[in-house]
Amino acid sequence: MASTPDWARVAYLGPPGTFGELAALRATTNGERLPFPSHAAVAAAVEGGKADAGIVAIENSISGSVAETLDILIHDTNLEVQRELVVPVVHNLVVRPGTPGDSVKVIYSHPQVFGQCRRFLEQCYPAAQLEASLSTTDAVDHALRRDGDAAAIATERAAELYGGEILSRGIQDVANNVTRFLVLGTGKTAPTGRDRTSIAFTFAEDRPGALASVLNEFAARSINCTKIESRPTREVFGEYVFLIDFEGHQLEPAYRDVLDAVRPLCAKLKVFGSYPRWRTDD
Amino acid sequence: MASTPDWARVAYLGPPGTFGELAALRATTNGERLPFPSHAAVAAAVEGGKADAGIVAIENSISGSVAETLDILIHDTNLEVQRELVVPVVHNLVVRPGTPGDSVKVIYSHPQVFGQCRRFLEQCYPAAQLEASLSTTDAVDHALRRDGDAAAIATERAAELYGGEILSRGIQDVANNVTRFLVLGTGKTAPTGRDRTSIAFTFAEDRPGALASVLNEFAARSINCTKIESRPTREVFGEYVFLIDFEGHQLEPAYRDVLDAVRPLCAKLKVFGSYPRWRTDD
Repeated sequence: MASTPDWARVAYLGPPGTFGELAALRATTNGERLPFPSHAAVAAAVEGGKADAGIVAIENSISGSVAETLDILIHDTNLEVQRELVVPVVHNLVVRPGTPGDSVKVIYSHPQVFGQCRRFLEQCYPAAQLEASLSTTDAVDHALRRDGDAAAIATERAAELYGGEILSRGIQDVANNVTRFLVLGTGKTAPTGRDRTSIAFTFAEDRPGALASVLNEFAARSINCTKIESRPTREVFGEYVFLIDFEGHQLEPAYRDVLDAVRPLCAKLKVFGSYPRWRTDD
Repeated sequence: MASTPDWARVAYLGPPGTFGELAALRATTNGERLPFPSHAAVAAAVEGGKADAGIVAIENSISGSVAETLDILIHDTNLEVQRELVVPVVHNLVVRPGTPGDSVKVIYSHPQVFGQCRRFLEQCYPAAQLEASLSTTDAVDHALRRDGDAAAIATERAAELYGGEILSRGIQDVANNVTRFLVLGTGKTAPTGRDRTSIAFTFAEDRPGALASVLNEFAARSINCTKIESRPTREVFGEYVFLIDFEGHQLEPAYRDVLDAVRPLCAKLKVFGSYPRWRTDD
């Protein structure tokens, strides 16, 4: 990932050992990684000058979009997306070193992680007591404090940080599980020729065909929309903010042109940023 | 809600005292309410004849769609949507009766609920230790077992079931927080004149304009799409299943016609069902 700027201070959703830190490790080699307790706090840290870039999870291939992050981008921040990062989600069964698998009676993790490892748990630990933790790192902390009857489901990084031993690797139900993160910062990136732009928009009234009219502007220019999504507006249940990702950069004429065509069709249009598309060899 | 069929056996995501049970209470007055450990198990209970209807959360006004339920509807079940239910989300601070607010040092809840009550927690209990639970009902159970230094964030129903006392009501950050549930069952409902239809579809290739061509069929007939959404297909990250809700019933000619027009534009099209739209006086 030689082309990635190496931010000096990178804010992420902590604690260390969670997937947020794994993403931060991909955004800075030599810089400081600063854990914060929420995605909102990550954005605020960059806005307040405590960090140069902030990393937020935007989408997981299994669980879908991260609503909290979408709402921050829609309502709360004017930071611009600088880059995207795709991090594989690998869950592991972590124990105090030397604990045999058959002595595990209690398993700690974040409730969502139990859902992602349901098959493994049913097959290998059907009788285990599941205990919730606030994060997978907390889960390792809890499990390793107990007297050899507990395990945690967590990242390899969390196991390393706490001196845990991995009993089983990659225990998530779906092998191809990845999370996409966005790096938020100030200022616009320069076009690279393989960029993505993320926008959000609303309509003044709930009119049949309004969304189609926007998509037709993209279709007429053969611009590929790589994602479309709707979020309830905070005001009225059943009214939506629409989000589109498309291939192209807002500073290039063809894409500036489509944004100029779409803007008058919308009540509000916000560009979250243009940024290089992730490549698997990054 | 006089018009609602009163199902004899209703499966829901338990345990009792969670919002799933509150929805089940709206679907059956005299019938049995059967808790299951996951939305997949709720659907399987109906498919296997253990229940006549199954209630699944589909969307929350704050956190957005429930990805697990969307995936069950897309991939795993042929049950049809019979009805929708909208339940207000009200979080309360629950303690062992007689516990004064200033003795609360530890607060239990589901991690997501802490996120929804962040402002209350920061203002009223900035120093409290937050402990994760698998459900809000488990949180009450945990808090009430402790020695008067703990509280839970949970429903009023959970407080009643466990004999807890509510210290503070409606502590969620956003007052207008509701969850939409679907009732899944077998067979098609009859049109009522104010119905909604939910569909999902995919395209054979990632072609600019494919989604616009579908939306144009709705726009040409002045049919109101009340929701649009995309979910990653399980196979390839970056490829999507699209979901649309529109006003109308699949058995009425105008709406059968739009489905017939859309079907050849898609690689796959699945109708989840047509069902009466929720009214606030239901």
